[in-house]
Amino acid sequence: MTTHILLIDCPDEKGLVYRITGELSRRNFNIISNHEFVDAPAEHFFMRTAFAGDASPDPVVDELRKTLPAAANIRLAAAGQRPIVILVTREPHCLGDLLLRHAYHELPARICAVVSNHETLAPLVQKFEIPFHFISHEGLEREQHEAAILEAVAPYTPDYLVLAKYMRVLSPQFVSCYPNRIINIHHSFLPAFMGASPYRQAFERGVKIIGATAHFVTDDLDTGPILVQNVQPVDHSYSAADMAQAGHDIEKIVLSKALKLVLEERVFLHHHRTVIFE
Amino acid sequence: MTTHILLIDCPDEKGLVYRITGELSRRNFNIISNHEFVDAPAEHFFMRTAFAGDASPDPVVDELRKTLPAAANIRLAAAGQRPIVILVTREPHCLGDLLLRHAYHELPARICAVVSNHETLAPLVQKFEIPFHFISHEGLEREQHEAAILEAVAPYTPDYLVLAKYMRVLSPQFVSCYPNRIINIHHSFLPAFMGASPYRQAFERGVKIIGATAHFVTDDLDTGPILVQNVQPVDHSYSAADMAQAGHDIEKIVLSKALKLVLEERVFLHHHRTVIFE
Amino acid sequence: MTTHILLIDCPDEKGLVYRITGELSRRNFNIISNHEFVDAPAEHFFMRTAFAGDASPDPVVDELRKTLPAAANIRLAAAGQRPIVILVTREPHCLGDLLLRHAYHELPARICAVVSNHETLAPLVQKFEIPFHFISHEGLEREQHEAAILEAVAPYTPDYLVLAKYMRVLSPQFVSCYPNRIINIHHSFLPAFMGASPYRQAFERGVKIIGATAHFVTDDLDTGPILVQNVQPVDHSYSAADMAQAGHDIEKIVLSKALKLVLEERVFLHHHRTVIFE
Amino acid sequence: MTTHILLIDCPDEKGLVYRITGELSRRNFNIISNHEFVDAPAEHFFMRTAFAGDASPDPVVDELRKTLPAAANIRLAAAGQRPIVILVTREPHCLGDLLLRHAYHELPARICAVVSNHETLAPLVQKFEIPFHFISHEGLEREQHEAAILEAVAPYTPDYLVLAKYMRVLSPQFVSCYPNRIINIHHSFLPAFMGASPYRQAFERGVKIIGATAHFVTDDLDTGPILVQNVQPVDHSYSAADMAQAGHDIEKIVLSKALKLVLEERVFLHHHRTVIFE
Repeated sequence: MTTHILLIDCPDEKGLVYRITGELSRRNFNIISNHEFVDAPAEHFFMRTAFAGDASPDPVVDELRKTLPAAANIRLAAAGQRPIVILVTREPHCLGDLLLRHAYHELPARICAVVSNHETLAPLVQKFEIPFHFISHEGLEREQHEAAILEAVAPYTPDYLVLAKYMRVLSPQFVSCYPNRIINIHHSFLPAFMGASPYRQAFERGVKIIGATAHFVTDDLDTGPILVQNVQPVDHSYSAADMAQAGHDIEKIVLSKALKLVLEERVFLHHHRTVIFE
Repeated sequence: MTTHILLIDCPDEKGLVYRITGELSRRNFNIISNHEFVDAPAEHFFMRTAFAGDASPDPVVDELRKTLPAAANIRLAAAGQRPIVILVTREPHCLGDLLLRHAYHELPARICAVVSNHETLAPLVQKFEIPFHFISHEGLEREQHEAAILEAVAPYTPDYLVLAKYMRVLSPQFVSCYPNRIINIHHSFLPAFMGASPYRQAFERGVKIIGATAHFVTDDLDTGPILVQNVQPVDHSYSAADMAQAGHDIEKIVLSKALKLVLEERVFLHHHRTVIFE
Repeated sequence: MTTHILLIDCPDEKGLVYRITGELSRRNFNIISNHEFVDAPAEHFFMRTAFAGDASPDPVVDELRKTLPAAANIRLAAAGQRPIVILVTREPHCLGDLLLRHAYHELPARICAVVSNHETLAPLVQKFEIPFHFISHEGLEREQHEAAILEAVAPYTPDYLVLAKYMRVLSPQFVSCYPNRIINIHHSFLPAFMGASPYRQAFERGVKIIGATAHFVTDDLDTGPILVQNVQPVDHSYSAADMAQAGHDIEKIVLSKALKLVLEERVFLHHHRTVIFE
Repeated sequence: MTTHILLIDCPDEKGLVYRITGELSRRNFNIISNHEFVDAPAEHFFMRTAFAGDASPDPVVDELRKTLPAAANIRLAAAGQRPIVILVTREPHCLGDLLLRHAYHELPARICAVVSNHETLAPLVQKFEIPFHFISHEGLEREQHEAAILEAVAPYTPDYLVLAKYMRVLSPQFVSCYPNRIINIHHSFLPAFMGASPYRQAFERGVKIIGATAHFVTDDLDTGPILVQNVQPVDHSYSAADMAQAGHDIEKIVLSKALKLVLEERVFLHHHRTVIFE
C-alpha cells in the first residue's frame, strides 16, 4: 500500500468534505489523516488528506477536477525526495544544519547543489560531497549576476530554492522564475526595527526577545507569507553582535522546520497568508 | 442559524468521514470546522465537527447511532454555559484568575459555587457574589469530609469540578462520582521529583525549568490524562519558596486554558490519553 | 536588621566596586546580593546592591556622593509599598490581574486609585474597595482631559502611573509630569506591523507568533525603553479578533512582571535602554 | 591587555567582595564583569570576575589564597581552547551540531577525538578530520570496555568528556576518573517517566511538552547537577517515535549551550546544585 497526499483549496461551499471523501471511499482508499480549514472571512476551503491504497490515485484527481468548483486547486503531492538548491553567502549555521539533516535523512529532500556569491562555504559543502557553485557578484550588474545564478541552478530543476542566509536582495524578475518556491530566513524583532542595522536598533532600545521568521519570498524580500517563527530571550548584557550571534540558533531551527513543512506538503498559500496543517 | 458541535470516536474503519459528513450534507447542514485524527497504533478514530443550520441536529445523531460501529461514542455538545463548581484550599491565584475570566465572560461556564476546607478565600469569592461553602476537614474522617463536600456540590449538578489548588487527596469513591469530570492543576518539574517537598528537591538539584500540568483526575490524584502543560525558566537565585511562587503564574494560565478546552468540547479521552483539537 | 537597596550608575572607571563595597564594609553592612554590569560601548557602570544592617544607610550614600564621579546617579530605594495609580479604558484583563495581585500582596505597591475615560471598569475596581475616577474625554480637548486626569492623580502623589490598556495617546506635556515613571503595555508582533489595525495586518500575513511589550513611556507612546517582552504562538485558525484575545494573557503577565521589576528597584534606565538585574 | 576569569566560592562572610576587588584594584586590574551570588540557606558565597590588565594575575590568586577563608575554592580559568573528547553511540544529531560549531569556532574547545561503541558515526567524524575511536562493547565486561575507553581517551588529557547520546551507563569507577568533568544530555518529561521506554509512557499519558536536560554526571547517570534545560510542545498526533525525533532538536541545543557555559567558566558546582552566571 502506498500513501498519497492530496491538497485541495477552493471557494467554500456546502458538502465539500463529503464529496472529496466520497471519491476516496468509492475507490477503496483508506484515509490516514485529514485536515480541513475554512477561512470564514475569505470564504475559502482548505483540505489536506493523506490516504493509502493499492490503486493509482490519478482517477480520484481526474474525477475531482470534474466535480469540484472550477476555481479549485487540486494537487497530488509528488512522492519521494524533492530536489532543492540552497543559496548562501558566508554564514555557515543554517547551511550546516541543512547539510547534516540531509545527510541523516531528516528532510524529504535531495540537496542538488549549493550556490554562493562567496567561496567561504565551499569546504563545508565539499565535506558532504555536494556540488558548490561560486558565482561572484563582483563586477557584475545585478541582472547579470542573477542570470548566472539562474543558469547554474536550472539544470537541477529544483522544486525549491532555499535562501540559507543569502544576503543579496533578489529582483522581482528572479523571484518570478520560482514563484512561491523560494524560502528565506531572516531575523525578527518584537517590535520590528526597520532599515539598516536592526540588531543595533534593537540593542539601543533594549529589546528582551529576538527571533527569526522563515517565509516565502515575494517581490519584497522580507515580507512574504510567513511559514515559521520562533524567538529567544536576550538581555542588556547582549551587545548588538551578541544578539546577531544568538539569533543563529533560532534561525537554523526555524529554517529547517519551514523547509520540512513545505516538503511534507503541509503548506497552503492563499493571497499573503499561509495555512499550515502540522 | 445555530452552531452545533458533534464529537465522535470509534474503532477506525474505512469511510467514516464520508458517512458522517454525508449525514450532515443530506440534512443541509454546513460544516464550519472539522477535525479528525486516527490514532494508528490504537486503530481508533476521533472527529469533532462544528456545523450550522436551521434544523435540529438530533436526527443526525439518531441516524449516526444506527449506522456507525456499535462501539462509537457520539456526543452532541451541550449548548451555552456549563455549570461548574470550584474546590480550593488557601491559595488565591488560580481561583482569582477563574473568577475574573468568569466575570468577563471569557469562559463558557457558570461558576455555581466555590467549596473550601478553609475560610481563607471566602472574601475573594464574595466580591464576585458567588456562594462559598466552608467545609472544614477538622475532626472529620476523610469519607465524612468528602460526603459533606459531595452533599454541598450536588444541588448545583455541575458538569465539572475544578480543583483550583485544592490540597487534599480525593478518594477513588469521590472521583467515581464525577468520572473524567474533575480537572486538577499541579506543579511539574523537568525531570519530576517524587514524594514530599518537590520544590525543595528541585532546588537541591538546581532545576532550570519549572512547570504546571492540568489533567483529569483519575484514582491517582496527580497522574490522570494530561490536558495542558507549560513551563517557565528559573535559576540558582530562586529559593524553593521562590520557585513555588514563580509556579503560580504558570499554574493559573494552564488551569484556565485546560478548562476552556474542556468547556469548548475540544477534548477526547481515550484510555489514559487526551486527543485535543485546538 | 533592615535590608536596603542601593542603585548606582556612572561613567565607568577602575575600582568602582571596590570603593562602593568598601563603604558598606566600613559601616558593617552585610551584602546580600550584588549585581554589576558595564555597558562597554557606552563605558557606563551599573550596580545594584542589597545589603543589611542595623545602622542607617544614609551616611553610606553621603560618603559615596563625595567620592564617586560627579555624574553618578546614587539612589537608595524607598522602603515598603510604593503608591501607584492605574489608568485604564475598557479592557479588564490587565487591571483585574493587578487588582488580584495587589489584594494578595504579590506587588510591593499600594494601588491608590484607578482612573478611566470610561465607566466600564468601575464595578470591578469597587469590588476591591479602591477609588475609581471616571473622567470622560467626551467634549474635552486633549489638554483639558489630560489636565483633569493630572488633577485627579496629583493628591495620591504616585511613584508610578501604570497604563493597563489605557487607549489614548498621552501628550509630551503629560509624559513630562511623570518622566520615566509611566509604564505601558502594548501588543507586539514579530515582525511588527505599523499603523492602524496591527492584528488585521498580522492576520493577513499569517504571523505565527504574537506578543506583548511593557515599556516606559517617553514622548512617543509605543517606543519607550523596553522592560519586559513575551510571546505566544498562533496559527491560521486565529482570526484577527482571536489574536487580539489571545494577546490578553500575554499582556497581563508582561505588565505585572514589568511593574514588579520596577517596584523592586531592579531597573536602570540609560538613554533609551534598560539594564535590568533580575 | 589580556582578560582573565577568576572564580571563587567559599562560606559566606562579610566583606568578601570588597577584599577580592581590593586585590584586583591594588594590582591595577580593570573589572570587566562581576557576578556574585550568596546562597543564603547554605551560607555560601559565589563570585565570578572577568578582569583585564597587562600584569600576570597569579599574584592576585596567591594573595587571595592567603587572605580568604581556608575553605575557599579559588580558580583562575584556563585560557584558550579547552581539550574535550566526545563519546557517542549511533545518533548523529548532537555530535553533528558540536562538530559544526567546532568547525566554525563557536565553542572555546578543541575536539580532540570522538569515541564510540559503534562504527555508525565514523564517516561523519572523518568529514571533519577528527580521530574516531571505535571500541565495541561486544564480548567485553563493562569494566573491560570502560578500561579500553579510558585508555583511548587518556592521551588527549581532556578537560571534559561530553556524552553526546552515549547510550551506555557509566560505572562509578569510570565517573570518578573525571569527577564533575563529564557532561551528559538526556530527554526529560514534565512530569518525568521513570524506567524503560519513557517516550512510550509519555505518549500513553498524552504529555504536551517534551524536553532535554544537560547535566554533570555523578554516580547515577541521569540525576547529576543540572546545567541547562529546555522544552518544546508536542500533541496527540506525535507517536512515541515522533516524540523521540522531536526531542533531537532540543537535545542538541541544550547540550551545546551547556558545554558553552562550562567552557566559558560560568558554572559553579556546590553539592548537587549548579550556580550559573550567564
